Amino acid sequence: MSRRTGAAVKTGLGERAGRMPFVVMKFGGTSVANVERIRNVARHVKREVEAGNKVAVVVSAMAGATNQLVAWVREASPLHDAREYDAVVATGEQVTAGLLAIVLQSMGITARSWQGWQVPIVTDNAHGVARIRDIPGAALRTRLEQGEVAVITGFQGIEPARNRVSTLGRGGSDTSAVALAVAVKADLCDIYTDVDGVYTTDPRIVPQAKRLPKISYEEMLEMASQGSKVLQTRSVELAMVHNMRVRVLSSFTPPEDVTPVDPATWDRIGTIICDEDEIVEQRVVSGIAYAKDEAKITLLNIADKPGIAAAVFGPLADANINVDMIVQNLSADGKSTDITFTVQGSELPRALEVLKKVAAKLGAFDIKSSNDVAKVSVIGIGMRSHAGVAAQMFKALGEKGINILAISTSEIKISVLIDAAYAELAVRTLHGLYELGKD
Amino acid sequence: MSRRTGAAVKTGLGERAGRMPFVVMKFGGTSVANVERIRNVARHVKREVEAGNKVAVVVSAMAGATNQLVAWVREASPLHDAREYDAVVATGEQVTAGLLAIVLQSMGITARSWQGWQVPIVTDNAHGVARIRDIPGAALRTRLEQGEVAVITGFQGIEPARNRVSTLGRGGSDTSAVALAVAVKADLCDIYTDVDGVYTTDPRIVPQAKRLPKISYEEMLEMASQGSKVLQTRSVELAMVHNMRVRVLSSFTPPEDVTPVDPATWDRIGTIICDEDEIVEQRVVSGIAYAKDEAKITLLNIADKPGIAAAVFGPLADANINVDMIVQNLSADGKSTDITFTVQGSELPRALEVLKKVAAKLGAFDIKSSNDVAKVSVIGIGMRSHAGVAAQMFKALGEKGINILAISTSEIKISVLIDAAYAELAVRTLHGLYELGKD
Repeated sequence: MSRRTGAAVKTGLGERAGRMPFVVMKFGGTSVANVERIRNVARHVKREVEAGNKVAVVVSAMAGATNQLVAWVREASPLHDAREYDAVVATGEQVTAGLLAIVLQSMGITARSWQGWQVPIVTDNAHGVARIRDIPGAALRTRLEQGEVAVITGFQGIEPARNRVSTLGRGGSDTSAVALAVAVKADLCDIYTDVDGVYTTDPRIVPQAKRLPKISYEEMLEMASQGSKVLQTRSVELAMVHNMRVRVLSSFTPPEDVTPVDPATWDRIGTIICDEDEIVEQRVVSGIAYAKDEAKITLLNIADKPGIAAAVFGPLADANINVDMIVQNLSADGKSTDITFTVQGSELPRALEVLKKVAAKLGAFDIKSSNDVAKVSVIGIGMRSHAGVAAQMFKALGEKGINILAISTSEIKISVLIDAAYAELAVRTLHGLYELGKD
Repeated sequence: MSRRTGAAVKTGLGERAGRMPFVVMKFGGTSVANVERIRNVARHVKREVEAGNKVAVVVSAMAGATNQLVAWVREASPLHDAREYDAVVATGEQVTAGLLAIVLQSMGITARSWQGWQVPIVTDNAHGVARIRDIPGAALRTRLEQGEVAVITGFQGIEPARNRVSTLGRGGSDTSAVALAVAVKADLCDIYTDVDGVYTTDPRIVPQAKRLPKISYEEMLEMASQGSKVLQTRSVELAMVHNMRVRVLSSFTPPEDVTPVDPATWDRIGTIICDEDEIVEQRVVSGIAYAKDEAKITLLNIADKPGIAAAVFGPLADANINVDMIVQNLSADGKSTDITFTVQGSELPRALEVLKKVAAKLGAFDIKSSNDVAKVSVIGIGMRSHAGVAAQMFKALGEKGINILAISTSEIKISVLIDAAYAELAVRTLHGLYELGKD
């Protein structure tokens, strides 16, 4: 969508002229899976320090560590106290933070590790799925300003009322990194992962898929929630609220091949997730997302009376089951109605259980369900000002003989539910249709 | 030494009449090696709670966990920052504490985990080998008084000036337990380990060895430092200073076979380490200890002039090498002197290096050394008031053809250095001599 835009990019650095960029670097579990990889991470950090940039690093647990800790907790008791769960699983990040600080010191870089309670990263008391409330961190800021590298445990914080360790839920380290970047007023939050950016679609399906130099927060949210799992959704929401630039790049790119963070060049590698105003040339469609872990449920011959939707979807919501696409039609005989909707594939058994209870109350209706469906989505902020995207999409899919089972749309997205067997064909068709593989 | 003494025992409970005992229970790494063993530990705790006793539990890391963490730190950098080492290795205890709290809760017991910084366990800033300075812990005490079980991480604390996690050095959990017992004014500090008490000598060498129901702090210190490695020496010193009763017992004794803590019966299992005044019937000799990791160094034909001992032993002390037994003799020609002393076997190479430098300064002398020596010690507070113990000992060893290479004594101990090949024979001979196998 955006080309290299050079000086035309709004950098937001006006009020900070003359000082070196301040960057938060986040490394996930596969990037710190063992000491050798931690050493590689340290070389990425060293590059930034030597360029004069101020650096805070956020780390996840070594790959596999959190799974082992969670397995122990479950073995201890399936119904465990979330506060104790947090005390146990938060240790994974503490190990990585200490080890990275040691490796950095051995390379001659001034560094220290910080645990969530030391910063402090203050959260609410929703242990296991806590939300960050505040990061006061005066001591942290002082040391960063003095040029010391702060290595901070991701995923965790402290609940101040009870003085207990809290965790943010799986993938929460992305959110830790963005929250810290906001708190320390960083110029950029670099998320190092195992892919080198956000692509127009999954390159395993479409080899012509192109890396997007920039993507807006809104588009990224649609990409993420539509099944393109690069960043935790909550971290993107947080970045959007605070207008924090987030860049996705690969920790497996050799550290010497990455240019130190600099506003003039930082869109030459990875993908920057930013405000749409920073994206000068906007394409109508930016990317194609797909999700295969969908399940379709159809309620047949349900009595068509007021309040029926609430009677069906209320209990599902109470059971914390997310309903996505909904289509309601008159049934064949015109007297009753059919309702079709989708849920996450893993939620299907629970959803069916809830619906059986609903059926018992409302009077009998038939329930049909299927796991063999996929959702394919076309995403782009340019769609706001361009009509006809949907019509093109439906026509192209129709020409390939792909049947559309349901449709849902937002301002910047059109999703269709199709037979799972056609998912790859649909993605390739749409990627070609909107010419996303062209430079 | 002590028999079952029933009501005659000084319990120290006069001022606490009417209230249930308050006990600190400590479990080492092998006792919490996996979730199944942690469940076993929880049954020990449950027994005490159900008897109405107040309970604080101190846990070590799961067996092997600390070794893995230390290995990672060393791989990260052989010369590592002790503060980061502490941040990493302290995580092992946090995992165990959380898991035990979860298992206890699943058994219907109110419990929570406490990390060193949460209690807080305040230490000095000697990271890696920190010493406990204070345990304020008002919140901890309140909750214990309310009947909640506190599961506390052993081995760690917090250094308040920098707000960093500190650790006490290997085996430090024993010290954590005793310090906590002192801080909360417990009646008893139960150290659960993999042996069921302190014996008159090593039962692997002398099958007739007897469990000692009680042993004085002083004797235990001699036993521990003489090679009977049940308890960390520092924990015994701390217990002695504060007159805290410490009991050693096995976590592998089925929980239902252990009587809940009660002053009337608590010497019927394990070994209580206590003030000698609590031991009514004292034997002259309580136990025989031996240490095989000794090395003997002899300096031959050293010029016999004033200050020679300081010139030799000063540099060894500066290098932090502990010298134990010292014997000085005139040499064969009567003009120079021979000095023989012992160091820990593992320190021998470093000691020889230091001595070569000393020799270069003092003028040449010959150095001979040997690892094939063992130290065997006879220990007993009754020796203070009984003469003749040493004479009996030397006679018995002589009759077996065992040559004594060096001797050192304290008020309650006689140690001899002998050829390592005779160590077991010497231990058996002395165990029989003082009739320690008799009831």
